[in-house]
Amino acid sequence: MNDQEHPAPTAPTASSTRVGVIGLGAMGLGMARSLRAAGFSVGVHDLRAEVAAEFARDGGTAYASGGDLAAEVDVLVGVVVNAAQVEAVLFGDGEGTGGAAERLRPGSVYVMCSTVDPAFSAALEKRLAASGIRYLDAPISGGAARAASGELTMMTSGGPEAYALAGPVLDAMSAAVYRLGDSAGLGSKVKIVNQLLAGVHIAAAAEAMAFGIRSGVPAEALYEVITHSAGNSWMFENRMAHVLAGDYTPLSAVDIFVKDLGLVLDAARPETFPLPLSATAHQMFLQASASGLGGEDDSAVIKIFPGVELPAAKTAPQEEN
Amino acid sequence: MNDQEHPAPTAPTASSTRVGVIGLGAMGLGMARSLRAAGFSVGVHDLRAEVAAEFARDGGTAYASGGDLAAEVDVLVGVVVNAAQVEAVLFGDGEGTGGAAERLRPGSVYVMCSTVDPAFSAALEKRLAASGIRYLDAPISGGAARAASGELTMMTSGGPEAYALAGPVLDAMSAAVYRLGDSAGLGSKVKIVNQLLAGVHIAAAAEAMAFGIRSGVPAEALYEVITHSAGNSWMFENRMAHVLAGDYTPLSAVDIFVKDLGLVLDAARPETFPLPLSATAHQMFLQASASGLGGEDDSAVIKIFPGVELPAAKTAPQEEN
Repeated sequence: MNDQEHPAPTAPTASSTRVGVIGLGAMGLGMARSLRAAGFSVGVHDLRAEVAAEFARDGGTAYASGGDLAAEVDVLVGVVVNAAQVEAVLFGDGEGTGGAAERLRPGSVYVMCSTVDPAFSAALEKRLAASGIRYLDAPISGGAARAASGELTMMTSGGPEAYALAGPVLDAMSAAVYRLGDSAGLGSKVKIVNQLLAGVHIAAAAEAMAFGIRSGVPAEALYEVITHSAGNSWMFENRMAHVLAGDYTPLSAVDIFVKDLGLVLDAARPETFPLPLSATAHQMFLQASASGLGGEDDSAVIKIFPGVELPAAKTAPQEEN
Repeated sequence: MNDQEHPAPTAPTASSTRVGVIGLGAMGLGMARSLRAAGFSVGVHDLRAEVAAEFARDGGTAYASGGDLAAEVDVLVGVVVNAAQVEAVLFGDGEGTGGAAERLRPGSVYVMCSTVDPAFSAALEKRLAASGIRYLDAPISGGAARAASGELTMMTSGGPEAYALAGPVLDAMSAAVYRLGDSAGLGSKVKIVNQLLAGVHIAAAAEAMAFGIRSGVPAEALYEVITHSAGNSWMFENRMAHVLAGDYTPLSAVDIFVKDLGLVLDAARPETFPLPLSATAHQMFLQASASGLGGEDDSAVIKIFPGVELPAAKTAPQEEN
């Protein structure tokens, strides 16, 4: 790649920006692959060393220590599950993962992709700024398939210097990068609102589908009509397909929404703001988890409704019409 | 039109089937116009005689009496608000509207487009069958704009003789006619499930948007991100556009969902079936109605959330960017 081909020769490019990804779950692994496919030099770390090694077999570098990775990169993308894990990655003293904040060089950027309380994200920007580290609040939406194809939606906010360095990194992972302002926390606020809707819509889809089946409407017909009517939602269409297939293999688990709707409610309480539907949906996911369904796909929240004959698993789909 | 052009020469055609429409609200008027545009001979009746006369100015016939209209048609399409009005149209003894069941000829079809309790619809089929009148359970979805363009979704069930005569009439009004089975009530059951989702989604959209705005996210940005993320729903996209515009002119009023979610809950109670989100959303619409918002657009349910600075009405849109 030739700098002279670029309209802004000093802008960071895939060849010059070293990127690290910490956390190689379904989302992080797809994002690391998208970055590698876009031409970035990608280092990775995961507590499961074999997952990092497997990634590096096709290019990039696996690090046994998150701190060592942090010391080598311009942009560190954190794709861990929650605020506690973000805390551990940056400030923890654990073996392997931990201590990245100490090792990141001044001027480098931490891209925070987890779903966290917006107040935590805003505070994190300030804590990292004390060491000269820049910060982007950058939660993601879209699921594992879109992470793998570099077509995520990112809800971001942060200062212009952080965007100047990390912007091409975000673009390589995403179909749409929303820049919501220069105040860290705005990205997380929008993500929280998205999770509120996603969680309520999954629970509502389950309530509606369970009631329809119990009333004697064939599940396939119900799905067909609703997905072509005003009652449709992105989540109804996506998750009720799992129910029709009788397949509760977790793409995203019940316990993720126990956590995320809990986070929504936690974020609203200090503002004394009522969220009646979120609270109700949270109780439904809690009931599912308490019934032993926490590790199943989140569509399994439909199993809390008694007396409903759900579609059976299609074990031999190739033999069916 | 020449019968020989048709694959099934004995099938009813627009030219041979006389159609009546009772109830010329936003939906019924659009449907009557679609039927007229498709070449049907259309008679209409509404308690507001001037609305019927206005329709007939461009073709078709206005009837001052619903009974007189019923006596003249092969297919009578009822587009009234609720079960009580269906009862009044068919069996009432009111002046003008009322008594249609007595005047419909044996072999004619009543097409029931209202949102009603499925048990009411199933019973209605039997009551009309006693007089030799056929019946289609045929609730509609899609809104006034799609009614006017003949692009409704219809959720129908009923016997084959009813479909044989009324099928072309349904097709002329709809982009999609779902035939859910030969048992009246199935169409209404699917409609009830659709209304459950539609009502919960409007209330969830309001809760999410109110919380986001209160948290400091600009309303326009929130709308843009959510409509491109997994938290989207048909209702969020449609109704929150009204909130952004600050325009609560009722396209469908808060009180419609006070009624429809009430109907959903009423239909579930005899089956001892819990609907936690529907019950919560119903309370939100009740609170809105009790606050004096019953006649506003259903998106006005967002006004139950205190301390939220909603977008102001755009009074001079032509001067804005």
